[in-house]
Amino acid sequence: MVVKIYGTGTAVCSQRVMHCLVELGVEFELVEVNLEKMEHKKPEYMAKQPFGQVPYIVDGDFELFESRAIVRYYGAKYVGKGPNLLGRTLEEKARVDQWLDAEAINYNPLVFPIVFNLFVLPRSGVPGNKAEAEAAVEKLDKVLEIYERQLSKTKYLAGNEFTLADLTHIPATRYLVENCNMDHLITGKKHVKAWWEDITSRPAWKKTMSFVESRVSHFYP
Amino acid sequence: MVVKIYGTGTAVCSQRVMHCLVELGVEFELVEVNLEKMEHKKPEYMAKQPFGQVPYIVDGDFELFESRAIVRYYGAKYVGKGPNLLGRTLEEKARVDQWLDAEAINYNPLVFPIVFNLFVLPRSGVPGNKAEAEAAVEKLDKVLEIYERQLSKTKYLAGNEFTLADLTHIPATRYLVENCNMDHLITGKKHVKAWWEDITSRPAWKKTMSFVESRVSHFYP
Ligand SMILES: N[C@@H](CCC(=O)N[C@@H](CS)C(=O)NCC(=O)O)C(=O)O
Ligand SMILES: N[C@@H](CCC(=O)N[C@@H](CS)C(=O)NCC(=O)O)C(=O)O
Repeated sequence: MVVKIYGTGTAVCSQRVMHCLVELGVEFELVEVNLEKMEHKKPEYMAKQPFGQVPYIVDGDFELFESRAIVRYYGAKYVGKGPNLLGRTLEEKARVDQWLDAEAINYNPLVFPIVFNLFVLPRSGVPGNKAEAEAAVEKLDKVLEIYERQLSKTKYLAGNEFTLADLTHIPATRYLVENCNMDHLITGKKHVKAWWEDITSRPAWKKTMSFVESRVSHFYP
Repeated sequence: MVVKIYGTGTAVCSQRVMHCLVELGVEFELVEVNLEKMEHKKPEYMAKQPFGQVPYIVDGDFELFESRAIVRYYGAKYVGKGPNLLGRTLEEKARVDQWLDAEAINYNPLVFPIVFNLFVLPRSGVPGNKAEAEAAVEKLDKVLEIYERQLSKTKYLAGNEFTLADLTHIPATRYLVENCNMDHLITGKKHVKAWWEDITSRPAWKKTMSFVESRVSHFYP
């Protein structure tokens, strides 16, 4: 039974899940949910993802939403299959959880208004709120200084191995860097820059991006 | 070696961690961090919790911040000691993760501005932003309707057992209900009301509240 991801290739939350499955070498099918047609707000969709957002997954008779819960699930289910994305001891796992939460709570809510106002809205012809984006840039820069200190001590956020804590940062940061003229936030910090170059040069991430660009729906590892 | 929680008894994020340890019957010491004196923004403190927030824990030579990462860690470390707070199978655990993330990402960011503007600020003589609170109330009510549907299917958020997914909601919701005149958000929904009564009548939660009120610093199970 092939894992089905209900989402859309360009959405960061779907990319997070796809990247994780590519790292682990798990076959999947991306079932397109058309956000422009508001398919994610239809009752049939919201019966599966009650907050009306992408993605959710269907794996046999198991269904799950929340992208970070999904990647945790596959990291545990396929432990030993690909790279260890979760940590090995309880303490390593706890550090991964710590930085996964930092991403979800402290990092992503700042990246979101920047990408939304400087890329998503302008792309559809609506002027973004620049002041809101600038306020978020200022705060995000402080968060990235915290990352810089952490990454001067360990190669990756949660230690010396690449884990979900790093992986979850990639999709939204890519929009920030490539589409918002905000690469200086990353490249201006020695360790953050090295980390960013390292994690985005992973073959699995490159494969994920090619998959998205190819617009095919079935991923074969 | 007794677990040390660096935090303050009244802060919801410290309460989340204390409640978890009380459930599991784990001894701890609460080391008071004085937020009014801004002790959490001092360099010594921020060397431990780089975002300058409470709490963090010290357990022997292991240190960790992010309240939800901390409760996950203790849920796993003391599995079998108290109630199972994490789920048993990978799928049960994934559902707990799903609702833990819903709390952190969709629920708490709405409760926070309500409690802040209607309780925290007015209590220190500063008028809160009522419009901001009202906007959050409206959105929170929609989130609680999603909870109502979930709780009509399962007794607790992640299934038929009390888990961390429920536990993490309690401290902030208590302020909402007891200090912001917002109990109708809970009591107006049949299943949410029953859930709230159930989870707040847990002996471990009551013990946690008595511990906070007693202002002692050492918890003996
Ligand atoms: N916490 C959710 C967030 C999902 C989310 O924000 N999805 C976005 C795309 S990245 C979405 O569906 N946006 C449309 C909307 O919110 O209406 C997760 O991580 O899965
Ligand atoms: N994501 C953090 C949030 C911690 C947090 O928001 N702590 C609050 C008290 S509940 C705090 O320290 N507030 C003071 C501040 O942010 O300056 C966690 O869950 O541990």
